[in-house]
Amino acid sequence: MSPADHLDARHPATDDISLTRVLSALSDPIRLGIVLLLSDGRERQWGELDAPVSKSTLSHHMKTLRSAGITRTRDEGTRCYVHLRGDDLESRFPGVLSSLLEAAPGEAAAVGLK
Amino acid sequence: MSPADHLDARHPATDDISLTRVLSALSDPIRLGIVLLLSDGRERQWGELDAPVSKSTLSHHMKTLRSAGITRTRDEGTRCYVHLRGDDLESRFPGVLSSLLEAAPGEAAAVGLK
Repeated sequence: MSPADHLDARHPATDDISLTRVLSALSDPIRLGIVLLLSDGRERQWGELDAPVSKSTLSHHMKTLRSAGITRTRDEGTRCYVHLRGDDLESRFPGVLSSLLEAAPGEAAAVGLK
Repeated sequence: MSPADHLDARHPATDDISLTRVLSALSDPIRLGIVLLLSDGRERQWGELDAPVSKSTLSHHMKTLRSAGITRTRDEGTRCYVHLRGDDLESRFPGVLSSLLEAAPGEAAAVGLK
C-alpha cells in the first residue's frame, strides 16, 4: 500500500459520503466553526487553527470531519494540512453545505487562525 | 398553566431553534424519514406513521424532533398529531430544510403510512 493509497483509504469517495454522517459531524459547534473557517477554500495547517479545545480534542474533531467526507487531510512530514471538500459535498448534496454555512455563524464556535 | 401554555413549553420558539440541535436530530435515518414524510405539510396522527421501530422508539424520535423545533405536536384526547414546522425552519435557516429534503431520500429510512 503506497502512502497515497493510505491517504485515500481514510477519505470516503464522494459517492460514499453519507448525509446522516455529515449532519452528525456538523452538529458540533467546534466542528461547525472549523468548517466555517475552511469555507474560504484555502488549505490550512492544523497548527494554524485556533480552536478553544485541547490538541487531542482537535485531533478527534478533525478525524470526525475527515471520515464523514467533509474535509481532506494531507500529511507532509510531521505537518498535517486540511481543506474543505466543498466541491465534493456540493456535487453529492447540492445546496446543503452552502445553506448550512449561511446559517452557521450564530452557533459555530469561534475558530480562528493563530 | 393552561394546556396551550404546556403545549408551547414543549416547543422552542422559532428564534430559539438551534442549528446544531436540528442537525443532530436529522442525523438519524428514521427521523430523516419521518421529516421526509411530513414534508408535504400535512398533519398526521402518530398512529398513522409506519416506521420500522417499536412504539417506544418512535415516541423517542418524535420527542427529539419536537424539542429540536423541527415538528409541532398537538394532543387531542388520547391522540397525538404531528406536523413539520417547515415555515419556521425556512424563516430561521433559509434553504437548509429544502436542500436536506432534496438530499434525504437516499438515506432516510422507509417511513410510510399505515
